[in-house]
Amino acid sequence: MTESRPPAAPASATIATIADEVGVSVATVSKVLNGRSDVAPETRARVEESLERNRYRRRTKRQPTSTGQLDLVFHEFDSEWAMEIMRGVEAVTSAAGVGVTVSQLGGAHSPSAQWLDAVLARRPLGVLFVLCHLTEPQQQQLQRQLIPFVVVDTDSATSASVPTVGSNNWNGGLLATRHLLELGHRRVAIISGPQDVLCSRARAAGFQFAHDEAGLTVDPTLVRYGSFYVDAGYRHGMELLTRADRPTAIFAGSDMQAMGVLRAARQLGLRVPEDLSVIGYDNLPVAAWIGPALTTINQPLRDMAGTATHMLLDLARGVELSTSRIDLVTELIVRESTAPPPDHP
Amino acid sequence: MTESRPPAAPASATIATIADEVGVSVATVSKVLNGRSDVAPETRARVEESLERNRYRRRTKRQPTSTGQLDLVFHEFDSEWAMEIMRGVEAVTSAAGVGVTVSQLGGAHSPSAQWLDAVLARRPLGVLFVLCHLTEPQQQQLQRQLIPFVVVDTDSATSASVPTVGSNNWNGGLLATRHLLELGHRRVAIISGPQDVLCSRARAAGFQFAHDEAGLTVDPTLVRYGSFYVDAGYRHGMELLTRADRPTAIFAGSDMQAMGVLRAARQLGLRVPEDLSVIGYDNLPVAAWIGPALTTINQPLRDMAGTATHMLLDLARGVELSTSRIDLVTELIVRESTAPPPDHP
Repeated sequence: MTESRPPAAPASATIATIADEVGVSVATVSKVLNGRSDVAPETRARVEESLERNRYRRRTKRQPTSTGQLDLVFHEFDSEWAMEIMRGVEAVTSAAGVGVTVSQLGGAHSPSAQWLDAVLARRPLGVLFVLCHLTEPQQQQLQRQLIPFVVVDTDSATSASVPTVGSNNWNGGLLATRHLLELGHRRVAIISGPQDVLCSRARAAGFQFAHDEAGLTVDPTLVRYGSFYVDAGYRHGMELLTRADRPTAIFAGSDMQAMGVLRAARQLGLRVPEDLSVIGYDNLPVAAWIGPALTTINQPLRDMAGTATHMLLDLARGVELSTSRIDLVTELIVRESTAPPPDHP
Repeated sequence: MTESRPPAAPASATIATIADEVGVSVATVSKVLNGRSDVAPETRARVEESLERNRYRRRTKRQPTSTGQLDLVFHEFDSEWAMEIMRGVEAVTSAAGVGVTVSQLGGAHSPSAQWLDAVLARRPLGVLFVLCHLTEPQQQQLQRQLIPFVVVDTDSATSASVPTVGSNNWNGGLLATRHLLELGHRRVAIISGPQDVLCSRARAAGFQFAHDEAGLTVDPTLVRYGSFYVDAGYRHGMELLTRADRPTAIFAGSDMQAMGVLRAARQLGLRVPEDLSVIGYDNLPVAAWIGPALTTINQPLRDMAGTATHMLLDLARGVELSTSRIDLVTELIVRESTAPPPDHP
């Protein structure tokens, strides 16, 4: 697509010149820009195409008001994890007098055209994407309207131009696996998150690296991917723990997944940590309370959300970001669910 | 206050007559109505007083647009509980093409003037209050602007004129306690929610009623109140379970509180349910996964939130509600954490 486009016009297009070029009224161009649905799809496509070819940008920033709103969109409303993100965002926005419009994509990783239209129509100060991202044309639609956006915990290798706050997932995978290997485990399984999400692959790479540096080989049948929720942990846990050559330790992709593994272990009569070690990921508040309290990797979700919100408010004020990609530090939290393997001297 | 007010003027006041009466400009009255902060507090108080005395109401509804927003305000962002409410709201609003602006009061049960000003300024279609309520003057401020509101799971005996969706807490308390008494327990403790919240007292009343109908006396030292979060369950659980005459069963105010009780029991070497039965409240998704899986009272949080959202959207469209107070049904979910007491034949 990109290569076949005509050379970009100088960035001097106005709504009027776009309307002339397409042969529609100024009002129609304006409707498309504002995400209104009362434009015929074919007309809309031609206007979009012209806007993009002419690199149309709004001339003036939205007037800042005391009632500024930002949009926070989740891939999914998922357990306490999403609540931690909301707490981090809210701490910053309530201090700044900014409202937060929250939505979810029902598990999808990119928003629908309908969702984007609603955002364009309400003109937020900016948009925070959590574990989801925009397609390239969607990014252009927001950019045209000078609506900045920041991604929290990116699910894909987004381009360097998209401001992103995450945490060091590779390091998290390394720390968790090192801990298990140092305890003496030699058959360690990983159930990471979904395979199409970057953080899952980064953690699996850290898992692999920890084995490499210890001179150990990874059994590929012990590397699993699944959703971050409890049932995936339960299902993979059951499969792994009913094998004759079952692992002595499991590194789960989230604390919720780890709870599913713990349930599978209980049903099979395996004691944690005596017969099986389990590590979670995230360090949700609940991880400290379950039995056994979960050894886990702390992912500073509130800080990640707060940092991203500050970046977004800076962008909305026209402040240049000093850096567009921040990864916060992950760390190992040792609690009760890990111990040396049963046959360990 | 109410008695000393002069008789209400007929509801014919306009912004102009209010401005005349107070001796300020129309713009100033308008600013007060719209929650703007750039009005001197003394002037604002006089305008508020005149608006209230004249029973001022906006003449016309806000134009409905495709970009309608409603406000959802929580007493607190509290674990998976708040997430369940959000899921219920979002299922209705996303189908209706309505955005949701979410905020929390940081544990307070009534919003601050600043919070209300922000809401007045953004003019939502309506406001959903979760486990919190407005003071009488705050209600008047919203009513003046024709912004409807609905309360989910009220924390107080709100007047019948405030539309409210809750669940039958008294019945929940009764069902949980009956279950324990029928299993043979005779020393049953209750840790309810905060004492100043209506649902906590309703559950405690159901607990009392179940004892009464079984001809049993409640030991008042076994009736506790605390926050809905885990640490309150842990603290009360420790106190109750280290007594020489410890209860054989504990009915907790939430699933999170029950997890705190389970942790206290583990630390004291008490097995659940062999040595101690525990019942939670809410039936959060996580309750089914912890060990032992929690017997609990199902509170249909998503349905409550969805019903309240439908009511609010009806009110915003000017539809009369057929009923202003709905309590959904609670039910007992028996899982693994309850059994007959240890000395039971």
